[in-house]
Amino acid sequence: MSKVVVGIIGAGRIGKLHAKNILLSEHYQLKAISDVDTNHLSDIDYLKAVPIITENADDILNDPEIDAVFICSSTDTHIDFITKAARNHKHIFCEKPISFDIEKTKETLQVIKQTGVKFQVGFNRRFDTHFKKAHDVVRNGDIGTPHVIKITSRDPEAPPEEYIKRSGGLFIDMAIHDFDMICYLSGQDVKNITVKASSLVNDCFSRNDDVDTAIITLTFADDSLGVIDNSRQAVYGYDQRIEVFGNNGMVQVENQKPTNVKVSTNASVTEDKPMYFFLERYNKGYIAEIHDFAQSILEDKPVVAKFEDGLQAELLAKAAKISWKENRTVELSELQ
Amino acid sequence: MSKVVVGIIGAGRIGKLHAKNILLSEHYQLKAISDVDTNHLSDIDYLKAVPIITENADDILNDPEIDAVFICSSTDTHIDFITKAARNHKHIFCEKPISFDIEKTKETLQVIKQTGVKFQVGFNRRFDTHFKKAHDVVRNGDIGTPHVIKITSRDPEAPPEEYIKRSGGLFIDMAIHDFDMICYLSGQDVKNITVKASSLVNDCFSRNDDVDTAIITLTFADDSLGVIDNSRQAVYGYDQRIEVFGNNGMVQVENQKPTNVKVSTNASVTEDKPMYFFLERYNKGYIAEIHDFAQSILEDKPVVAKFEDGLQAELLAKAAKISWKENRTVELSELQ
Amino acid sequence: MSKVVVGIIGAGRIGKLHAKNILLSEHYQLKAISDVDTNHLSDIDYLKAVPIITENADDILNDPEIDAVFICSSTDTHIDFITKAARNHKHIFCEKPISFDIEKTKETLQVIKQTGVKFQVGFNRRFDTHFKKAHDVVRNGDIGTPHVIKITSRDPEAPPEEYIKRSGGLFIDMAIHDFDMICYLSGQDVKNITVKASSLVNDCFSRNDDVDTAIITLTFADDSLGVIDNSRQAVYGYDQRIEVFGNNGMVQVENQKPTNVKVSTNASVTEDKPMYFFLERYNKGYIAEIHDFAQSILEDKPVVAKFEDGLQAELLAKAAKISWKENRTVELSELQ
Amino acid sequence: MSKVVVGIIGAGRIGKLHAKNILLSEHYQLKAISDVDTNHLSDIDYLKAVPIITENADDILNDPEIDAVFICSSTDTHIDFITKAARNHKHIFCEKPISFDIEKTKETLQVIKQTGVKFQVGFNRRFDTHFKKAHDVVRNGDIGTPHVIKITSRDPEAPPEEYIKRSGGLFIDMAIHDFDMICYLSGQDVKNITVKASSLVNDCFSRNDDVDTAIITLTFADDSLGVIDNSRQAVYGYDQRIEVFGNNGMVQVENQKPTNVKVSTNASVTEDKPMYFFLERYNKGYIAEIHDFAQSILEDKPVVAKFEDGLQAELLAKAAKISWKENRTVELSELQ
Repeated sequence: MSKVVVGIIGAGRIGKLHAKNILLSEHYQLKAISDVDTNHLSDIDYLKAVPIITENADDILNDPEIDAVFICSSTDTHIDFITKAARNHKHIFCEKPISFDIEKTKETLQVIKQTGVKFQVGFNRRFDTHFKKAHDVVRNGDIGTPHVIKITSRDPEAPPEEYIKRSGGLFIDMAIHDFDMICYLSGQDVKNITVKASSLVNDCFSRNDDVDTAIITLTFADDSLGVIDNSRQAVYGYDQRIEVFGNNGMVQVENQKPTNVKVSTNASVTEDKPMYFFLERYNKGYIAEIHDFAQSILEDKPVVAKFEDGLQAELLAKAAKISWKENRTVELSELQ
Repeated sequence: MSKVVVGIIGAGRIGKLHAKNILLSEHYQLKAISDVDTNHLSDIDYLKAVPIITENADDILNDPEIDAVFICSSTDTHIDFITKAARNHKHIFCEKPISFDIEKTKETLQVIKQTGVKFQVGFNRRFDTHFKKAHDVVRNGDIGTPHVIKITSRDPEAPPEEYIKRSGGLFIDMAIHDFDMICYLSGQDVKNITVKASSLVNDCFSRNDDVDTAIITLTFADDSLGVIDNSRQAVYGYDQRIEVFGNNGMVQVENQKPTNVKVSTNASVTEDKPMYFFLERYNKGYIAEIHDFAQSILEDKPVVAKFEDGLQAELLAKAAKISWKENRTVELSELQ
Repeated sequence: MSKVVVGIIGAGRIGKLHAKNILLSEHYQLKAISDVDTNHLSDIDYLKAVPIITENADDILNDPEIDAVFICSSTDTHIDFITKAARNHKHIFCEKPISFDIEKTKETLQVIKQTGVKFQVGFNRRFDTHFKKAHDVVRNGDIGTPHVIKITSRDPEAPPEEYIKRSGGLFIDMAIHDFDMICYLSGQDVKNITVKASSLVNDCFSRNDDVDTAIITLTFADDSLGVIDNSRQAVYGYDQRIEVFGNNGMVQVENQKPTNVKVSTNASVTEDKPMYFFLERYNKGYIAEIHDFAQSILEDKPVVAKFEDGLQAELLAKAAKISWKENRTVELSELQ
Repeated sequence: MSKVVVGIIGAGRIGKLHAKNILLSEHYQLKAISDVDTNHLSDIDYLKAVPIITENADDILNDPEIDAVFICSSTDTHIDFITKAARNHKHIFCEKPISFDIEKTKETLQVIKQTGVKFQVGFNRRFDTHFKKAHDVVRNGDIGTPHVIKITSRDPEAPPEEYIKRSGGLFIDMAIHDFDMICYLSGQDVKNITVKASSLVNDCFSRNDDVDTAIITLTFADDSLGVIDNSRQAVYGYDQRIEVFGNNGMVQVENQKPTNVKVSTNASVTEDKPMYFFLERYNKGYIAEIHDFAQSILEDKPVVAKFEDGLQAELLAKAAKISWKENRTVELSELQ
């Protein structure tokens, strides 16, 4: 196999983003796209090179030429598509979260294990150039053994109340990325988690039994410590920073800014605010994750963001919610 | 009064530092210095302008010309000197901690209140140019209402075991500065405190029932949150940073470096490590705090770091230790 | 016209880069590509959506449906293609330099003026997000009237001797970009130019009657000053910085780095070197320039990098060479 | 000799600054201060430890106990005091410039050479922590052989017209520091110098046959290049930066700011402007230079800023003025 023949299930914003990146990649051949409604795809120039545009996902799942599927449909359809794809021996790239139901997620993990297909979950931050370099610095031992891992993760503005209602809450909707990143950086299992959280940004959150501001602390298996601070609203832009402090040094990732321009006047010295939100900030991560997935298939290497990683982040989100609700430290062993 | 006539009790490292700064200040006249042993002071040129060098602190405490005393002697002598000085109507600058005994500290507060003298505790970080500016930005409302306050405070290297044994532990010895700073920045009372702490740097700490690494989270009265991370060893130098995040923005203080020199080669781009330790980092704060104390006396203004602030930091250190020992959140109301 | 129908003449590295960006743009329809040899294009997936792949440029120049041509062929063919395209009323995007012969360039300018087609020269740095913002800050008056404009422009490594032989020398090959940028930032005509230049990097340059290091100073019409420093070898990477200093302030553009990761150890604090070379550094500028060209056509607006700008930069390169050779200040009026 | 016994001639702003620093230094004993009028010195506390305060400089020059003199009087008195001090075998620290007359300066150099006393000129920037580190990086070979040295030197605001009239012009009054610094960094002789200069800040300069903005380029003996840009007015503060670019890398010194505080809001990210002017910026350099002078005497080591360095900077200032006036490159050999 010199190129991965691929089908995309679901052509919403994220599906089309993957389609464009796949078309530009020399590692893929994009054979088919399915969506519940394909009318909106007809006047997109760059899709004219795609042989099959269909409203039936089975056209992809049953196509023997297709090596891998990208599951970009709504979350409630994931488990079904994953199961069919795996049984048809197709490698799977699935957007996060795998499902809303931890028990079903656990069952599906068994299917993946039995069929032996590659499964990558869309934790694209692991493929961000900046965070990946920090990770590599840590793994390479440049800062020694990690003692404290710190993540700052703040959205530029609070979502509308309709979104909050359906989101599942800050821990599963927003902090899940940070849970994955802190585990990725640490390489250790989490022993326990403690949350302090408040509703300070606006009333929508408390009205929906949610919070908008949180400080989450974790103890890892080797007694090293982690801390995440989240806010639903950082008026100066998307705030995404990490710091790993070890016995031999520290690695830090600062925010990315649109430009490096600095203006000095008699009033002040000003520079750009951080990039606005995730599409700008993690743009390259979306390209890198599909590149890496192709490499995993073509060279039969393990994937970087595997099924178990998706499951682990969901467990931490659940534990965090309990810690907040019950105002106590939650041992991860309670959930297993 | 155009100048504050002053006596210094205790001429160790910190007492001599204050003496030098007082001599250079136009707001003070340094009349006397006492120490249990004055021999080591005889060949210091800049002390030749000081009229009285004595081994009897009472020469200072009873001198009617002296307006204010600097108490720089060992901590166990503080309460006695404070009480005498206050009763003799002298303003007091006292090094921290006020005492090792919270009950005695509380009693002495009553004496200060009765006599009406000015009392400043030596929390010199409040006078650090950088931290003070951050504080002023917050008070000025530039970032709106604080939601999250973060302090990173790491020493460059662990102290010797002898020091650890007598130090009272990380919370009272090291984090006490950070407790004061976080209260200073917040302006709110603390509701509760939760600690995760480990011994990761070396064995000395656990051997002496102490920790070397901690993440301390706090909830303030208005439900805003605070987090302090401490380590006894940052190999790259003294790591002293703060960040206050509010509904309208954020203010950050970065580390200070000896120089702004940057070297770019084909291997890397390198710059200076942070300043080594507190004498380098907070050098100007020692000058600013005595300047401010003089202003308080000469213009009859409130002091910036008052007796109650010293007491509050001691209470937080005590609560933190309980939180660590009992692995639970401690309400400040438990201690009052 | 809702989309610009376009043909590309010349499918080398830069032609293919434009082809990819045009395909991804919603403002263009890519109808045809010509190259002297089209065999190497057959297995490029993203070109499958292009209707005409031809070895005859006239298929493009004579196609009545085609609104605009991109001339990406070798420099000696530019004048011929420009003339034909203009006479056939096609808008023109032409890679730099327009030609190697200033007299022919001047004649061709007349053709462009007579036919009234849009003509954009490929000075992609004008479209770089960072430099463009600096330009806009200046035009907006934020720093007042420019007094001094400084450009640092250093390549990461010297080209091979074969390249040096054919390059025309540092001033026309390398500094030409900086001449365009300094004029773009200033908005003023240049009165005179003075060069100090040396051969310090290696022997290839002096052997070929060229230099590798230069400091070029300019006086603008309003007596404000400019300075460019060039080197053919900056071992730490591509060094591309600008600074405009005015009576009300200063705007600076720093280098771009691959990541914002910083590593602190007991040895040093290190960060990334600048991006390696122009394809990395000016990547987005290549996209922005074709976007802007489309806007100029679709909305009938003036182009940002026009024919006269290409001519002006060539004149400055010529004057710089004379200044170096004759070791004197050259008035631009001498060349007109 | 364990301490240098010292007298200060001239107790203006700079003389008093040296007096304070000398008193605080353990390497000096300050025996005497002379000034044409000593009344203003009587109520300065820190001068009470100085045994002799006199209006007759000879009391210092003839005192056999005094090892070294600091000449801080007006420039027209320098040559006379230097000559007397040298003949009385006293080491000399002299403020810059040595004199206004290059021929007299050259003659006095002979006296210094004959008597063999140490002579240090007050080029305090050589002792600035930041610039000194850059110098040491260059000398240490970390960036290889210097190819281009760049200095930016801009004052925060233009001086009053009265000052301009008497200043001798931008090159001798302001650029002289930069001439010394560029020679210090290069370690090479200057072959020639070319100036482009304008009057852009205000009318006072052209009215007095002076300029306020200049770009000065230099060729060193090894054909490496230097460039200095000066302005009499940088509204954002004192702008003092250097960059040395070599075949193996680059070293840069950025501006110093009062604090490292950064404020992010939805409007912008702002930080401090540079320190206001030379007293703030070079504060530590004044302490370091007298420390180094004492070391030179006590350990019989060469001084860092010697008589010849003062002479060389004066020659460059003269050549720069000729280059500007005659609009041509000036060979340094013309002046010797």
